[in-house]
Amino acid sequence: MTNSAHPRPVIAIDWGTSSLRGARLGTNGQVLESREFSRGILTVPPGQFEAVFYEHFGDWMQAEAALCLISGMAGSRQGWQEAPYCPCPAGFAELGQHLLWLQPHRIALVPGLSCMGQDALHTPDVMRGEEVQIFGALQLAGRDSATLVLPGTHSKWVQVEHGRVTQFSTFMTGEVYALLSQHSILGKTLDLNGAFDEAAFVQGVDQSQTAGSVLHHLFAVRTLGLFERLSAAALPSYLSGLLIGEELRQQTVSADAAPVILIGNNALTLRYTLALQHLGIACQSLGAEATWVGLFALATAC
Amino acid sequence: MTNSAHPRPVIAIDWGTSSLRGARLGTNGQVLESREFSRGILTVPPGQFEAVFYEHFGDWMQAEAALCLISGMAGSRQGWQEAPYCPCPAGFAELGQHLLWLQPHRIALVPGLSCMGQDALHTPDVMRGEEVQIFGALQLAGRDSATLVLPGTHSKWVQVEHGRVTQFSTFMTGEVYALLSQHSILGKTLDLNGAFDEAAFVQGVDQSQTAGSVLHHLFAVRTLGLFERLSAAALPSYLSGLLIGEELRQQTVSADAAPVILIGNNALTLRYTLALQHLGIACQSLGAEATWVGLFALATAC
Repeated sequence: MTNSAHPRPVIAIDWGTSSLRGARLGTNGQVLESREFSRGILTVPPGQFEAVFYEHFGDWMQAEAALCLISGMAGSRQGWQEAPYCPCPAGFAELGQHLLWLQPHRIALVPGLSCMGQDALHTPDVMRGEEVQIFGALQLAGRDSATLVLPGTHSKWVQVEHGRVTQFSTFMTGEVYALLSQHSILGKTLDLNGAFDEAAFVQGVDQSQTAGSVLHHLFAVRTLGLFERLSAAALPSYLSGLLIGEELRQQTVSADAAPVILIGNNALTLRYTLALQHLGIACQSLGAEATWVGLFALATAC
Repeated sequence: MTNSAHPRPVIAIDWGTSSLRGARLGTNGQVLESREFSRGILTVPPGQFEAVFYEHFGDWMQAEAALCLISGMAGSRQGWQEAPYCPCPAGFAELGQHLLWLQPHRIALVPGLSCMGQDALHTPDVMRGEEVQIFGALQLAGRDSATLVLPGTHSKWVQVEHGRVTQFSTFMTGEVYALLSQHSILGKTLDLNGAFDEAAFVQGVDQSQTAGSVLHHLFAVRTLGLFERLSAAALPSYLSGLLIGEELRQQTVSADAAPVILIGNNALTLRYTLALQHLGIACQSLGAEATWVGLFALATAC
C-alpha cells in the first residue's frame, strides 16, 4: 500500500444494495468529482449492470487508460457478477490478488471477505464493501493493527492485526432499529420526527447493560411511553441507545487499548462515539472518504 | 376462587388486538358453545365496540341474567373503554375488585396488570388478557405459586406467589420473529413454507446460549444459508430457536424448581417445551381453556 502517484486515471465505485456512488480520482488520490445515485443493485435487473454502469459513469471511462475498481454488493450473487469472498485472515495484498476483472486491466470487482466465527460451530460471517473502507481507514489513521467499527444496517466489528483482517462480526443493529421503529407495535408510541435526544439515548445504553435480554428491554419503549416517563419524540433515541448498547455489551475492547476506529456517516458515528465513551472506550471517527482512499490504494497496487 | 356452581349464565369474552373469541359457559364452567371472529380491536372504529359486541354475541346475552366478562385489549385505551391497570402484586381478589362495569352487574371489562421492574429505574411492564389465563391455569394445575410462561407475539414470564402475581416481564420474541422472517434481509434466504425442523431449532437454541449478542447471532441465518450449511426450509426453525433461546437465556428458573407452566397454542408450547427441556427446565403445558376457566372463576366471585 503506497501513496505514490498513479499514472492512470482512477474511477472508484461503491455499488451497494441501495445506492451507487462514484468518484473520479486525481493522480494523488484526491477526489476530482463525485456522484451518487439511488441505483443500488436491488434496482438493477439481471444483465443490466454494464448498461447502468456506463449510463452513469461512461463519460469518465472515456479517459485514456482509465482504471475502474468497484466494491460492494455489485460483486454479490445478485450483482453484476459474483466475486467469491476472500477468506480471512486477509490483507490488502490478498484483496488485490482476488480482484475479478470484468474487462482486463480496465474494470474489476473487489471481492468481499469471509471469516469463520470463533464459536464451536465456526459460524461464517461475510462483508462486501467494508473491506475497502477498512484498508482506507488504516492508511488514513496510519495504523496496521486496530479494532474497527463500521456502523450501519449491518454493523461490522473488525479485528486487524499487522495489516490483515483476522476476524469480524456482523450485527443487524440498523436493520432491527428500522424494523422496530417502522413496523412493530413500538412504532405506534414513538415519534420518528423527534430530534436526537442524547439523554434518552444514554438511558437506553445504560438499560441495555443491565441483566435480562434485549427482547425484554425493547418492550420498555412501549411502556415508558404509556406511563409518560419518556416523550414520544425521545423514544426513538431511547430505542437506538438500547440497540447500540446491546451491540456494544459484550465487546471485548479494553479501556486501555488503542482507540477504536469508527467509519461511517456523521449521524451514526456520533451515536457510537457517545455510547463508546459512555462505556469508557476511546474512539476516533473517519468518514466516507475511507472508501476512496482504499480503492485508490488498490488501484495503485494493480 | 371456587368451583361451586354459578346460578347465572356466564358469557366469557377474550377480545384481543387481532381476534375476538367468546364462549357460553354452563353452570359448572363447561363450554357449551364457542365462537371466534377476526374482529380484533384494531378492526373496530371508536364508538362501535358495543354494536360489534351485540352483533356477535347478542343472542347469548338474551338469556335471563346473563353475566358477561371481557378480558384483553378491549380494556385498553384503544378499546371499548379503558380499564386502568391493576398494580402488582395482585391476586384474583384484586382483579375482581377492579372490574370495570359497562352495564352494572351485566357486562364488565377485566383490567390488565402492571408492575414496576426490578431494575434500577423500575421500568414498568404491562399485560392485558394474560392475567385471566394465569389465574385459570393455576386453578387447572392446582397450584398457588408458579413460574408461568405465555408465549406469543409478546411473551410473558410471570411469577406467582401464594396466589398473587408478584412480578412479570414481557419479551417481544414473537413480533421480532415475524418482522425478521417477513421484512428483513433474512427473509430473502429462508423458506417460510418449510415444516418445523427440530434439529435446526435446537441448533438455534444452542447458538443463542453462546457468548455474543443476539444481534450478531441473527446474521447467521443469512450466512448459514449462503454457505449452504442449513437449507432454506430449515432456516425459519433456526431463527425461531435463536429467538426463543435468547428469551430463555437469562431466566432464573432452577432445574429443581416446580415445573414451569406454559400456556398457549400447541405449536408454540411445543417449541418452548423443546427449548426448556433442552436447557434442563421441567414444564407442563395448558391450552386456551385457561381463559374460560379464569373468566368463569371471576364471574363466580362477582
